[in-house]
Amino acid sequence: MSDPTLPSFPTSLGTSEGTTITLMGQDLATELMGEVSFGELAYRLLTLEVPTPQQSRLFEAVLIGLADHGFTPTAIAARLTWLSAPDSIQGALAAGLLGGGSRFLGVTEDTGRFLGEVLAGLEEHPTDEAGWDAVAEAAVRRRKEAGRFVPGLGHPVHKDGDPRTPRLVQIAREEDLYGPHLALFEAVGRTHETVLGRRLPLNGAGVSGAALADLGIPQELLRGTVLLARCAGLLGHIAEEIRRPIANDIYMSVDRNAVYVDPTETAPEA
Amino acid sequence: MSDPTLPSFPTSLGTSEGTTITLMGQDLATELMGEVSFGELAYRLLTLEVPTPQQSRLFEAVLIGLADHGFTPTAIAARLTWLSAPDSIQGALAAGLLGGGSRFLGVTEDTGRFLGEVLAGLEEHPTDEAGWDAVAEAAVRRRKEAGRFVPGLGHPVHKDGDPRTPRLVQIAREEDLYGPHLALFEAVGRTHETVLGRRLPLNGAGVSGAALADLGIPQELLRGTVLLARCAGLLGHIAEEIRRPIANDIYMSVDRNAVYVDPTETAPEA
Amino acid sequence: MSDPTLPSFPTSLGTSEGTTITLMGQDLATELMGEVSFGELAYRLLTLEVPTPQQSRLFEAVLIGLADHGFTPTAIAARLTWLSAPDSIQGALAAGLLGGGSRFLGVTEDTGRFLGEVLAGLEEHPTDEAGWDAVAEAAVRRRKEAGRFVPGLGHPVHKDGDPRTPRLVQIAREEDLYGPHLALFEAVGRTHETVLGRRLPLNGAGVSGAALADLGIPQELLRGTVLLARCAGLLGHIAEEIRRPIANDIYMSVDRNAVYVDPTETAPEA
Amino acid sequence: MSDPTLPSFPTSLGTSEGTTITLMGQDLATELMGEVSFGELAYRLLTLEVPTPQQSRLFEAVLIGLADHGFTPTAIAARLTWLSAPDSIQGALAAGLLGGGSRFLGVTEDTGRFLGEVLAGLEEHPTDEAGWDAVAEAAVRRRKEAGRFVPGLGHPVHKDGDPRTPRLVQIAREEDLYGPHLALFEAVGRTHETVLGRRLPLNGAGVSGAALADLGIPQELLRGTVLLARCAGLLGHIAEEIRRPIANDIYMSVDRNAVYVDPTETAPEA
Repeated sequence: MSDPTLPSFPTSLGTSEGTTITLMGQDLATELMGEVSFGELAYRLLTLEVPTPQQSRLFEAVLIGLADHGFTPTAIAARLTWLSAPDSIQGALAAGLLGGGSRFLGVTEDTGRFLGEVLAGLEEHPTDEAGWDAVAEAAVRRRKEAGRFVPGLGHPVHKDGDPRTPRLVQIAREEDLYGPHLALFEAVGRTHETVLGRRLPLNGAGVSGAALADLGIPQELLRGTVLLARCAGLLGHIAEEIRRPIANDIYMSVDRNAVYVDPTETAPEA
Repeated sequence: MSDPTLPSFPTSLGTSEGTTITLMGQDLATELMGEVSFGELAYRLLTLEVPTPQQSRLFEAVLIGLADHGFTPTAIAARLTWLSAPDSIQGALAAGLLGGGSRFLGVTEDTGRFLGEVLAGLEEHPTDEAGWDAVAEAAVRRRKEAGRFVPGLGHPVHKDGDPRTPRLVQIAREEDLYGPHLALFEAVGRTHETVLGRRLPLNGAGVSGAALADLGIPQELLRGTVLLARCAGLLGHIAEEIRRPIANDIYMSVDRNAVYVDPTETAPEA
Repeated sequence: MSDPTLPSFPTSLGTSEGTTITLMGQDLATELMGEVSFGELAYRLLTLEVPTPQQSRLFEAVLIGLADHGFTPTAIAARLTWLSAPDSIQGALAAGLLGGGSRFLGVTEDTGRFLGEVLAGLEEHPTDEAGWDAVAEAAVRRRKEAGRFVPGLGHPVHKDGDPRTPRLVQIAREEDLYGPHLALFEAVGRTHETVLGRRLPLNGAGVSGAALADLGIPQELLRGTVLLARCAGLLGHIAEEIRRPIANDIYMSVDRNAVYVDPTETAPEA
Repeated sequence: MSDPTLPSFPTSLGTSEGTTITLMGQDLATELMGEVSFGELAYRLLTLEVPTPQQSRLFEAVLIGLADHGFTPTAIAARLTWLSAPDSIQGALAAGLLGGGSRFLGVTEDTGRFLGEVLAGLEEHPTDEAGWDAVAEAAVRRRKEAGRFVPGLGHPVHKDGDPRTPRLVQIAREEDLYGPHLALFEAVGRTHETVLGRRLPLNGAGVSGAALADLGIPQELLRGTVLLARCAGLLGHIAEEIRRPIANDIYMSVDRNAVYVDPTETAPEA
């Protein structure tokens, strides 16, 4: 159907003809709708592979763990945007997702990349906990010496342990999906204190990066996976804002506590 | 923990303390992660209600049916944005979602609102097909007389029938969730030709609006539900763009076929 | 240069060849850069017409009046997004602009459309203030009877008068650009009390809509013009957030004052 | 007016009281509207400093040079988003700006940072062209040895010279604003061939970064400045799309040339 003089645009996602729609090679209406879960569909869209029920369970558990964290900056931004433009729910959702950058939502990707780089440097994977501990301690030490942060460690609230971390490890073990990224991440948890001088919890965003990497989600799509999870959480915030609004109170509490500072006092030094 | 002199900000979504996280009143790690599907979580976030397995199946079938439609304007916009700013996957995703407005993605909301308004005007629901047909025909007629479009009818490709429509009806019936919105929508399908003078298929976006309304998703969140579905599809496009890029070819095919027109010929008439 | 088998894409904006760039028919480097103001360029881009110096002065005065309003929801959303994703300033700016919808930034467009519709219904324009007052009073009355809000009236802070309103009127008069939209808007200011029963100030967003409409900016681009103005203001907020951050304090003041409410108490009534 | 138990939120931007609005310490209505250009206001918002007329001219020339580049990916994304959601012009504008990332719009920032880093490493600035050439050649060599790209060099169309480059240099010299960043950038233009083995033009995005840095725009706001310029250009594209639409043709030319590829052929290697 394509014109040979034009560039053609290959895709393995959706195609439609007459009375059928195909998505990744399967009939959308009869083989996907009502047959698979939305999480499984997302897994396929990200990887073009069909997950086992075990992989779907772990993948969806990660999405659920990352969907919402209460009044985060992204949730507040989405609510304020809905307040200003209630006719464009897509704008409120987009505004919230745009906070999915390096500082807060980036931990999952950063951890997946860190673990992946360490694993890529190994000739073979350790076979016991002591072996993983040696690899982890050396990796944390190199990271510290390079003046870089070890991703996935620490949490402002869950100082004594993020409940998502042992839970994801447990699900991964139950489903026989506990792989080298999780093994290395747990070893970081056991050994970092020796190098860094203080004990920090393995956080939920970090363990999610390890679990997704063990599932085979490509590194460059780890942040995208978090964004899908967060999309559901942001819709929850917008739904709540519609039912029980608070954004105007937030706006007022900022506006009324504004203090004007003479710009000549704040001009940046030359 | 809140300061009584400040406004307080009520929420029924997430809270965290010490080593627990609660989401909508349930323990995130033990009662949600690994226990429910991501689609079920999204349903809860939108409605604060726990879906039955039947409701989850229908809800997830709707999400799957709306996730992707191939090279839509939104998918192309997301790919072009990723081409320009590959360091910010959140921007590419947001750009795609911003196309979720009135023209293409709005049909689900428009249909849900149309059906809801007709139902709200009934003293009691019809009890048989002939009764629904009479209601539907009158509603289509009023709509036509008001010079307005009937939402949910017609499709550029699936002129002989959108395969998602009978499938969602079937799933709704299987799960005993076939309600008044679907009944009215099917009646619109049977009767509009009498009024409009031509036969159009009931499209997938429209039947999704009917099914979501029967599930109890509030009208003002119907478009948000479509956006969640589309979020997965857009991630699929970004993933494919990373694996097998086409956005630069699209850009080039537009740029190279630009034709300059003297602005004095195109200036809007005064 | 275009392939005749492909669609061609006409434009009167930019074209490039070899060592020249043309923008709207003028040489970018020699006829625009250093020769015209950025505001004038924006006027041309919106209208494809070359403004007189008088039109540029009024247009830029409007942009300046709309650039910033302190800690608005959009400014707060931009700052919170920058806090979360400081690596993507485009995301912070976009998040702020996405609040440019109906509730706050829409007044300029709404006023321009309202005035334009009233004017379109006149056979000829009044020639004196009394004539405009009669038109305005009737228009306000029709609006009230239709249960609709009169746009451009009222301001939460400037209850005794928005200083931008007389200033824009003055500039328009100085530049001989005081046209029917401004005349009608001022008449609305003089006469609405008779109909609405209370005296409200003509606000700056509204008078901006009137002035832009008198300048010939198309109605469907009035909101876009406000967005350009706001783009500068949002960059000012992001610049200030970099110099003297407050977004984390906003986030903390919301998060620490969250109060959890049992979802069964907040579930929407069926 | 602020509550002492709350955090207060300092700002040097806008404040309002009764019948006055102040922006950066000046009366908005009487000292800014009608008195300064929009470009000058933007300069103040970015730096909190009042530009001289010379600085304003150079700053606005940069904005004008960066406003539009024809059918770029960002312009196409904005048009496609407007096609899908014409009710939300803010979404179309935001979608376009979200392409303001590393690949295309990042050159201005990258060049400013590169030049700034080289200058920061000098004990004193050279006093003649030969001196700058030596600094530039060494800097290009270090960059090449580090395997990094030299920003600001090369252009797909203007292989024999980007016309904006000599023009901005000329304006900077006319206004006595030719500083060390421009001197170093021109020296890069004279010397890179020795190191890189081929002669590339200094592009307009790069010279803009040098000129903005000489003007004192902070490095972290260089991309923001480009985004403001691009905001005007994107509005020009949206205005043109409204007058003479092409987005649907773009969409159709992609969709009709889609070629389905079996996903098992494209799945990423394990």
